[in-house]
Amino acid sequence: MARSSALTQKEKDFISAGRVAHLATTDARGRPLVVPICYAFHGIDLYSSIDEKPKKVSPLLLERIRNIRENPYVSIVVDRYEEDWSRLAYVLIRGRARILTSGTRHKKAVVLLQRKYPQYREMAIDKRPIIHITLDRAKSWGVL
Amino acid sequence: MARSSALTQKEKDFISAGRVAHLATTDARGRPLVVPICYAFHGIDLYSSIDEKPKKVSPLLLERIRNIRENPYVSIVVDRYEEDWSRLAYVLIRGRARILTSGTRHKKAVVLLQRKYPQYREMAIDKRPIIHITLDRAKSWGVL
Repeated sequence: MARSSALTQKEKDFISAGRVAHLATTDARGRPLVVPICYAFHGIDLYSSIDEKPKKVSPLLLERIRNIRENPYVSIVVDRYEEDWSRLAYVLIRGRARILTSGTRHKKAVVLLQRKYPQYREMAIDKRPIIHITLDRAKSWGVL
Repeated sequence: MARSSALTQKEKDFISAGRVAHLATTDARGRPLVVPICYAFHGIDLYSSIDEKPKKVSPLLLERIRNIRENPYVSIVVDRYEEDWSRLAYVLIRGRARILTSGTRHKKAVVLLQRKYPQYREMAIDKRPIIHITLDRAKSWGVL
C-alpha cells in the first residue's frame, strides 16, 4: 500500500485513462454496494456525477449517496481485464467521500467530467449532486 | 429489486456471459473493499477462486477473505461499459459469502471455473480457497 502522494506517474496515467471504475460504499449496517461509475481524476481527488435514472426518484435518495452520508469510507478500483492474464492490471483506491451539490468545487468537477466525457456535455450534470472522493491510499498491480 | 429466483433468463445469460465482475466486501469496521473477480455462475450461486499473487502471503490472509469472515454480506456487479451510453448495462447482486477450502461444493466450483476460464486449467485452483456467494436479490439495468 502506498500513500496517494506516492502514486507513480504510471498509476496516475492509468487512473486518468480509465473510462469506467467501480465504487464500493457501505451503509451503517455494514452492507456493501458496488456500482460502475464514470469519473474524473485530478490531483488526489475523484469526482463522479449522480446522473442515473430513474429520474422519478430524487437522485439524493440514491443508495450510494445514502451510504456515503452514513459512512464516508469508500473503495474504488480502476482495472483492465484481458483474456491474457499476464496483462491484468488495477489500481485500488481507499478514500473518503462526500456529496457536493453546489459551489466552486462542484463547478470544477462538472468541467472535468464534461472534458473527459463528451456524453456529459449534453446533460445537466451541473444540476445534479457529485460524489467527491479524496484518496487516502492506493495499491496497484500490473500497471507498468 | 427482484428476488434472485425471479432473475430473468436475459439476466442469467448476462451474468453467465460476463468475464469479469466486481466484488465489494466490508470489514467489521464498515470499510468497503472492491476488487475485480473472475467467477462462475450456477443456479443462484457464484464462485470465485482466490488465485492472486503475491504467493508469499497465505491466500487465507487476503483482505477479501478476512472481510467475508468478519461480515458475510457482499455486493457484486456484472456490467457492460460502452461509449454509446444507451448501451450501458448491469446486473447488481446482493448476497452472502462464505469461504470454501475443500469438499464437494469446492470441487464443483473448480470444475465450473475451469470450464469457463481455460486460464484456470493450468492453475492449481483446487488447492486454493473459493468464495461461494449465494444471491439474495438482484436488480438490473439495460439487460434486454
